Amino acid sequence: MEIAIDSTNTQKFAKASDSTAAELASKSIIDLLGRTQIQKYEIDGLIVSSSSNDSYLGNIVSEMVGIRPKFSTKIENLCNSGTSGIMLAYSLIKSRLCNAVLVTGVEKQNSQGNKLAWDISRGQYNMPVHWASLYAQNHFRKYGTTEEDLAIVSFKNHMNANKNTKAFFYDKHFTYSTIVNSKMVAEPLKKFDCCYPCEGCSSILVLSEAMAKRTEIPIWIKGISQNNQGASFASISNNLDYILSTRIAARDAFQQSNLEPKNIDIVEIHDAFTILELLAYEDIGFTDKGEGRRFIDKNTLYTNVRGGLLGCGHPIGATGIDQTNEIVIQLQGKAGLRQKKGCKSGLVHNMAAAGTSTTVIILQK
Amino acid sequence: MEIAIDSTNTQKFAKASDSTAAELASKSIIDLLGRTQIQKYEIDGLIVSSSSNDSYLGNIVSEMVGIRPKFSTKIENLCNSGTSGIMLAYSLIKSRLCNAVLVTGVEKQNSQGNKLAWDISRGQYNMPVHWASLYAQNHFRKYGTTEEDLAIVSFKNHMNANKNTKAFFYDKHFTYSTIVNSKMVAEPLKKFDCCYPCEGCSSILVLSEAMAKRTEIPIWIKGISQNNQGASFASISNNLDYILSTRIAARDAFQQSNLEPKNIDIVEIHDAFTILELLAYEDIGFTDKGEGRRFIDKNTLYTNVRGGLLGCGHPIGATGIDQTNEIVIQLQGKAGLRQKKGCKSGLVHNMAAAGTSTTVIILQK
Repeated sequence: MEIAIDSTNTQKFAKASDSTAAELASKSIIDLLGRTQIQKYEIDGLIVSSSSNDSYLGNIVSEMVGIRPKFSTKIENLCNSGTSGIMLAYSLIKSRLCNAVLVTGVEKQNSQGNKLAWDISRGQYNMPVHWASLYAQNHFRKYGTTEEDLAIVSFKNHMNANKNTKAFFYDKHFTYSTIVNSKMVAEPLKKFDCCYPCEGCSSILVLSEAMAKRTEIPIWIKGISQNNQGASFASISNNLDYILSTRIAARDAFQQSNLEPKNIDIVEIHDAFTILELLAYEDIGFTDKGEGRRFIDKNTLYTNVRGGLLGCGHPIGATGIDQTNEIVIQLQGKAGLRQKKGCKSGLVHNMAAAGTSTTVIILQK
Repeated sequence: MEIAIDSTNTQKFAKASDSTAAELASKSIIDLLGRTQIQKYEIDGLIVSSSSNDSYLGNIVSEMVGIRPKFSTKIENLCNSGTSGIMLAYSLIKSRLCNAVLVTGVEKQNSQGNKLAWDISRGQYNMPVHWASLYAQNHFRKYGTTEEDLAIVSFKNHMNANKNTKAFFYDKHFTYSTIVNSKMVAEPLKKFDCCYPCEGCSSILVLSEAMAKRTEIPIWIKGISQNNQGASFASISNNLDYILSTRIAARDAFQQSNLEPKNIDIVEIHDAFTILELLAYEDIGFTDKGEGRRFIDKNTLYTNVRGGLLGCGHPIGATGIDQTNEIVIQLQGKAGLRQKKGCKSGLVHNMAAAGTSTTVIILQK
């Protein structure tokens, strides 16, 4: 049985609002349900992806939107939560326990996840930017990547975000000069090399083959895979050249889909920091190791058209879902202002904590 | 493909300890892995069921026990978390994304879940005992159930717990008189009608058919089903005679397993309050509506041999897993002091918040 995605919804990413996590999620789901051919009573699964401390969010949101699913739960997997939720939805349907599973990612500004407090191996360097800076220093030293190369990633993604009304930085126009000259945070990463954790909500509807065929333009999940390499930087710092979890997750997803990197037209990359976008190009297999910075110039595929985490902001549990939504609407031809032409296959790359875990999803029209 | 459970582990339920949630879970998993034929490197999934606010517990525990799974996440579904985790493990394997999934439930004493703060429909009556008291009052009025009937449930389960070294009340011997005369909490429910939230950890290993066949005594999941009816008492209080989510989940699980209530030899019932055990007998279909109190005297099946939530204590995210563990070890013939003879089929009943959600699992040797 094939599994597909039909409808998506994203609420405006913001600094903060008066809404609770449950209210944000409900608003997003109600908007989504208003635009799908699937009836509300047919929804038989709900997964809420969130770092929120609120208990029983699956059932609270179910009640608020008026569904009585066969399965519901909240999940938390740090920055990799969103696509973990989609993977669970996929498995619930594939195993025939459910037919139509909503996955909603929601985060309030006070969510956890900014500080990697558990990782004693980092000593005082327990902010995500610390490990990202080590990856960057290694890439600079070994492959000649420069601060200017990283600034180009940030500039590109911010420019893309200017076409995405839901993005946190939608109406903020930054010049390349502002970006490359921004304040140093952790050498060589500057303010504009880092994403901004914010509030946001994004939802998606995953369907069985039979239900998907009743919808207008189903987008099929051809490959979905995750890999986990522990939680601490110590467990992955033997080699700063690559992110092992990304390599394995991408390899497995490509294998499952019978596709190769050259078949992909559009990607959403987990650019929590600029350097991660370059590493991902290499580790997914779009280009050779060390060539990440030159890959952008080649312009062979559309990258982070949504604006990436750098341009959209990063509502932890919602990010992976919004990344997936972007690929879905691009393949459906519903991306409006930022629609890219001729995309048939897309890929989502979602990560957490020092690259200790990665999920890769491959989608096709 | 059939799905089975091989090994289980439970750590002593306690009031509190110096261990973190991750440490408790790791200890339990390491103990479990020491007793299964499945090798550590073969474990490709981990689900941590917990109300803990700690982020990224799936990956932290993975690192602490030395596994690098294909999928890991934390889930939270209040008192119904444990069996939600088992249902996800089942679906991950059935969908062929994983082959061997650990589910570990862990709770510290400071976990959330004691107060149903979100449920405005209850007004000031936002403690679980308030809704349980309404169910009890209705049962008293309509079916003639008495305080003494409820005390018998509590007495039975506490007696059972005296044979379970992992139970919180293992070494506490209460007389029927102590129980029936205990302090009133919310008319007609007394102190001994209520379970005690505590710290605890319980783990289980769910396997694909091929891997299960390599183990000594695999116990097969013949039916697994959940039902959700929102989150608030308002959404279910039209009729206090029964718990709708239990009725639907049990009906679906029996249908899936091709078994009937009369085929079940042993059950673990979610007795967060004594009255819930009587309601569950009726709603699962072991006896007619209103006959719950007389069903115990008939002694037709083994009930809450572990000691139930009343005798074991209730570590929120661990409870559903420990309930399942009890049925597994009873069917395997490994229950030691409290082993019951001739059990071939068992059932687990796990609930949350006013009966708004229920999971039912049917297991067979």
